[in-house]
Amino acid sequence: MNVNRYAENPLITPKDVPPSHPDMRVIGAFNAGVARVGDETVLVLRVAEQASADEDAVGVPVYNPAHRTVEVHWFKRSDPHYDFSDPRAVRRKDTGETVWLTSMSHLRLARSRDGRHFTVEEKPFLAPETPYEAFGVEDPRVAEIGGVYYITYTAVSDHGVAVGLAATRDFRHVWRLGLILPPENKDVVLFPERIGSHYYLLHRPAPRGLGELDIWLAESPNLRAWGNHRFLLAPRKDSWDSLRVGGGAVPIRTDKGWLILYHGANEKNEYAMGACLVDLGDPSRVLARSAEPILKPEALYELAGFFRGVVFSCGAWVEGDVVHMYYGVADESLAGADLSLRDILDSLA
Amino acid sequence: MNVNRYAENPLITPKDVPPSHPDMRVIGAFNAGVARVGDETVLVLRVAEQASADEDAVGVPVYNPAHRTVEVHWFKRSDPHYDFSDPRAVRRKDTGETVWLTSMSHLRLARSRDGRHFTVEEKPFLAPETPYEAFGVEDPRVAEIGGVYYITYTAVSDHGVAVGLAATRDFRHVWRLGLILPPENKDVVLFPERIGSHYYLLHRPAPRGLGELDIWLAESPNLRAWGNHRFLLAPRKDSWDSLRVGGGAVPIRTDKGWLILYHGANEKNEYAMGACLVDLGDPSRVLARSAEPILKPEALYELAGFFRGVVFSCGAWVEGDVVHMYYGVADESLAGADLSLRDILDSLA
Repeated sequence: MNVNRYAENPLITPKDVPPSHPDMRVIGAFNAGVARVGDETVLVLRVAEQASADEDAVGVPVYNPAHRTVEVHWFKRSDPHYDFSDPRAVRRKDTGETVWLTSMSHLRLARSRDGRHFTVEEKPFLAPETPYEAFGVEDPRVAEIGGVYYITYTAVSDHGVAVGLAATRDFRHVWRLGLILPPENKDVVLFPERIGSHYYLLHRPAPRGLGELDIWLAESPNLRAWGNHRFLLAPRKDSWDSLRVGGGAVPIRTDKGWLILYHGANEKNEYAMGACLVDLGDPSRVLARSAEPILKPEALYELAGFFRGVVFSCGAWVEGDVVHMYYGVADESLAGADLSLRDILDSLA
Repeated sequence: MNVNRYAENPLITPKDVPPSHPDMRVIGAFNAGVARVGDETVLVLRVAEQASADEDAVGVPVYNPAHRTVEVHWFKRSDPHYDFSDPRAVRRKDTGETVWLTSMSHLRLARSRDGRHFTVEEKPFLAPETPYEAFGVEDPRVAEIGGVYYITYTAVSDHGVAVGLAATRDFRHVWRLGLILPPENKDVVLFPERIGSHYYLLHRPAPRGLGELDIWLAESPNLRAWGNHRFLLAPRKDSWDSLRVGGGAVPIRTDKGWLILYHGANEKNEYAMGACLVDLGDPSRVLARSAEPILKPEALYELAGFFRGVVFSCGAWVEGDVVHMYYGVADESLAGADLSLRDILDSLA
């Protein structure tokens, strides 16, 4: 697989992003949904912020919908009840449960004409606002359907990790369409057009008991209500995607089928991107799947950072044979790479 | 709370139910959805079956959709990799994960004219048939909407615990409408009529990470596709429903609001039934909730059995002021009780 990483990588780093509030510090500018608006590339970027640092304590920012403010809860690092070893979360030592996140994310726009140099907007585009977003909004994907850009995103709160839908026509005004999937679910990508009489999406439930971290398919008459849930793709033992898989970019229509770029991770939490192909007329039929990743962490900015060894794409757009893929690196910054569509299709078993 | 348990309790026990196959043994006839058809009470009963007993081994029955047969996998009790302490499941010792169920359930009809003496049908009404039902179908609820009886049930397989929808007009022919909610979810009850322009249901997701075992609300234009998921009711600390809650009977329309009979359990896995009231026009508004259970395990058949200390209702019907409630006892048999609707409403704080 020929991967042409951009020489400008990483394209956007935390220091390129002004914080949403003087008391906050941007620690991540990564996982971005991608839209083409005229000849502009618009990224809907996940921006993660922490409360100002304290060596002895971990600050947990939480949006309070009643007061419409962000409050910071401080945990002493010496507190024996909690495990702080994962930089992303505070866990209860007795049950291992994630109880808080150490950062809060919002969505921010970044725009570019050449696809490599981006101007990041000053203010958040979609920031936590509902009780389901109290711990943040994360990992947006953007699908353009009938002139409307639909954004599926992860809504995180003490109610769980759920999936929100928002829409915009102009990337200025955005409106929410509610939670389209209940906890625990994430990695939702909409197919960019109806197939037959229904809309389709990919989702990734995280069940408590039976079941793995699989990709599922669902269908809808109206984009807001979803049913006919069907299993689509599982992790593969002894493979780079042995522990979890999840949808990445919005599916790409090719003459061989819908091309799905997905992420997978193994037991070491090493994230890479793979591809699979599903039937154009019946997306529940998996036609082919790549044995090896199409992109895996190799560059320095992919191997080092906040959470090492992660490449995680939420969006790409296609120009002729070129897939312009944007992807988060090390849960910290944003990078881009060009891949050949034909190369990807040829690599599918 | 005056609870008039039926003198005939338990109304149906495993020995009243012919097995679905000579190699199987009925160990549970419990959690039943309830429908009124003319002057008949029809129960859609959960029937749990085990493979014929073996002292040294645990048999796990699994439906194989490719061969359309039930296969039994045997685990030696001495196998150090598995934990057999819970009679309902085989768990991996290293991760604590439930990997198999020791019984497989199907749905069976039972009919009665007096509501106390039931005739159990010879054959299953809805038995595992799809890959999502390989470990069984469980805990049905029945809602009559526009002359059709809709059955929401738990579909269990190695893909997870999901929610299926089936429909019947006559309790002879039944057709499936797919999975309406992905894993992990259960305890789904449909509201028996539209509210405004939408149908509504209660569901109970079980998230892997953040979030508790809460009751949620969802809405639909067509009963098949569901969206606008909203949190409704949480477990209460230091209460009889401290660990989990889940919808029970189909909501009952009263002039004060929709009366929801739900189950709750505490950390000791003691299950009882409670009640809450939500707004007639906006079921996301909780108006009142009972501090104490309306029914808790007290009778001998509730306190002893396959899984002790459980009362679990999946259905009730109302005649004047009388709530005829049917409920599973000890995950083994089915019982009934009459409660006063006014008493329940008066008990709500």
